[in-house]
Amino acid sequence: MSESRPPIKIYTLEEIEEVASSSTFAVSLVDAIQSGFAAFSRGEFNAGVIQTLGAPPMAPFVADCPNYAAQTCVKSGYITGSEYYVIKVASGGNPHENSGLVQLYSQRTGKLAVLLLDDGLLTEIRTAAAGALAAKMFAPTLKATDSVGMLGSGIQARFQLRYLAHVTDCRNVLVWGRTEEKVNKYKRDMEAEGWQVQTTNDPQRLLRCPLIVTTTSAREPILKLDGDTERLNCHINCIGADATGKMELDPMLVAASDLLVADSKKQTRERGEFEEAISRGLVSLDQVVEIGNVNTDGEASSSPSKRFSIFDTSGVAVQDCVVAEMVMKALATNATG
Amino acid sequence: MSESRPPIKIYTLEEIEEVASSSTFAVSLVDAIQSGFAAFSRGEFNAGVIQTLGAPPMAPFVADCPNYAAQTCVKSGYITGSEYYVIKVASGGNPHENSGLVQLYSQRTGKLAVLLLDDGLLTEIRTAAAGALAAKMFAPTLKATDSVGMLGSGIQARFQLRYLAHVTDCRNVLVWGRTEEKVNKYKRDMEAEGWQVQTTNDPQRLLRCPLIVTTTSAREPILKLDGDTERLNCHINCIGADATGKMELDPMLVAASDLLVADSKKQTRERGEFEEAISRGLVSLDQVVEIGNVNTDGEASSSPSKRFSIFDTSGVAVQDCVVAEMVMKALATNATG
Repeated sequence: MSESRPPIKIYTLEEIEEVASSSTFAVSLVDAIQSGFAAFSRGEFNAGVIQTLGAPPMAPFVADCPNYAAQTCVKSGYITGSEYYVIKVASGGNPHENSGLVQLYSQRTGKLAVLLLDDGLLTEIRTAAAGALAAKMFAPTLKATDSVGMLGSGIQARFQLRYLAHVTDCRNVLVWGRTEEKVNKYKRDMEAEGWQVQTTNDPQRLLRCPLIVTTTSAREPILKLDGDTERLNCHINCIGADATGKMELDPMLVAASDLLVADSKKQTRERGEFEEAISRGLVSLDQVVEIGNVNTDGEASSSPSKRFSIFDTSGVAVQDCVVAEMVMKALATNATG
Repeated sequence: MSESRPPIKIYTLEEIEEVASSSTFAVSLVDAIQSGFAAFSRGEFNAGVIQTLGAPPMAPFVADCPNYAAQTCVKSGYITGSEYYVIKVASGGNPHENSGLVQLYSQRTGKLAVLLLDDGLLTEIRTAAAGALAAKMFAPTLKATDSVGMLGSGIQARFQLRYLAHVTDCRNVLVWGRTEEKVNKYKRDMEAEGWQVQTTNDPQRLLRCPLIVTTTSAREPILKLDGDTERLNCHINCIGADATGKMELDPMLVAASDLLVADSKKQTRERGEFEEAISRGLVSLDQVVEIGNVNTDGEASSSPSKRFSIFDTSGVAVQDCVVAEMVMKALATNATG
């Protein structure tokens, strides 16, 4: 194995975690993600086609355990005129958890400048930052005495709360998960981080919360439209459904919404929570607003007629560019400071 | 900047150059590329869609010089059942020359295992190895007293000769290039490497050589079909045209060929030397044979009726996988040997 140091900057997961865990970083990231979405919606972001490996029609990866469904995603892009272009590799779904890295190349020289060996961490936090941003914009009435409804109890369900803590005083969460053991672990972990956690066996109960966050990898609806939900007054952040065929919401629930927001209109037609509702003709793509086109004062959500809104995010590469540049700059400042 | 060593194996360009420059390595690589092409043609290779950044319809990269036409290509894939999947980033066309890296991830664990900081070197040598393989298969009559006709005098024109030296005794080359100064430099450099180099101002003269190699980035035909070429008895390796719109051969010359071979039938329809001839209806895709489907004894070329053959390569990710695994293993052996 080589001991020599390559002529580029390489940062380990531990170093990245250190700079990314500060409150200042989180607050700035939410703002930067908002600017990134706005640049994306103005057409100033250049995204490569998404490469997916290990998923049909390709052969599956070689597995060392049953029920193995690993896949790897390569997302690339750059903001027109910015300093770097970014290539992100994120692998997930395998028994060894997330892996991957983020590469920053100089647009000016083409040279590889920085490698962030993040093992998927940056994807978790840029996704959490998008959730926090949407909560700020579309659930501004969330009070300290309310509860956040959380569907799922995995890694992203943790990151969503961590980032929400930067945009709301609310510290109560009502969680539903498929596996009792995982839900109990989630309760212990998040209580250790300052949250009051209640659990429920009935996912429909989450719909009484003013903000609901969905983070599972379900392929069948979990949250349904029933009698109760006709009086819905809430905002749902849909995080889990990031690939074609995945869904957590009943398409009828999507159709009942007063405001549909997505990170990318193009992407929301092909993957995510609105895919099924659009293909069934229950809603039209024209009804969907891109978050980057919503006024920053949240006017779309404060209108009395918009009492039930949904934000669907499957993740766009502009988020990866934004978080990568922020982490890189924070690391460089750390080194010279 | 971080001084800590990440928990993966990272190799520098110098280390890669050391193992890749041996004659044993080169000879093995030509064989391994042949096996790789065969696996590809049997449908055992899984290729991701090619990501191209910095090219239309995207905004160009930020440039620091005029006539800047940099672009970056991400090619990914894996042989079904093999140990690794490979993601290769190669940037080129910018004033600072090539850049990029090759990443190997375990199919079994999803974890990043090895980073080869090759700055595009592995793309050069796997392309050169494909050229040497095709010369061995389709120009077996090339004698020591013959000359190789070389169109272009850039980096790949050098690598092509270096790899040809492993499959033929011929050490004479007749070179044509657009810029006299570059051609003279090429002559000096390759003579220092043991070649007898003649230059010509007339590209058509190359067609008198039994083996011609084209390595320019031309977008208009340079080699034409004229009276002389009706008596053609040669093989042409087309290396330069690797993107839609690039071409070095007159489509009529392509149509005059007795044997058309490509690395990938799918790719040769969209990019490379046969693209224009196919779209004009001068040849049909059905006439094109994949190199991985040609018998290894070169029978297709030794038939008297196949006196004028063309091999078109725009590069497929199976070559990247093959060269990456070979380099990685050679480096590991070096470290423990």
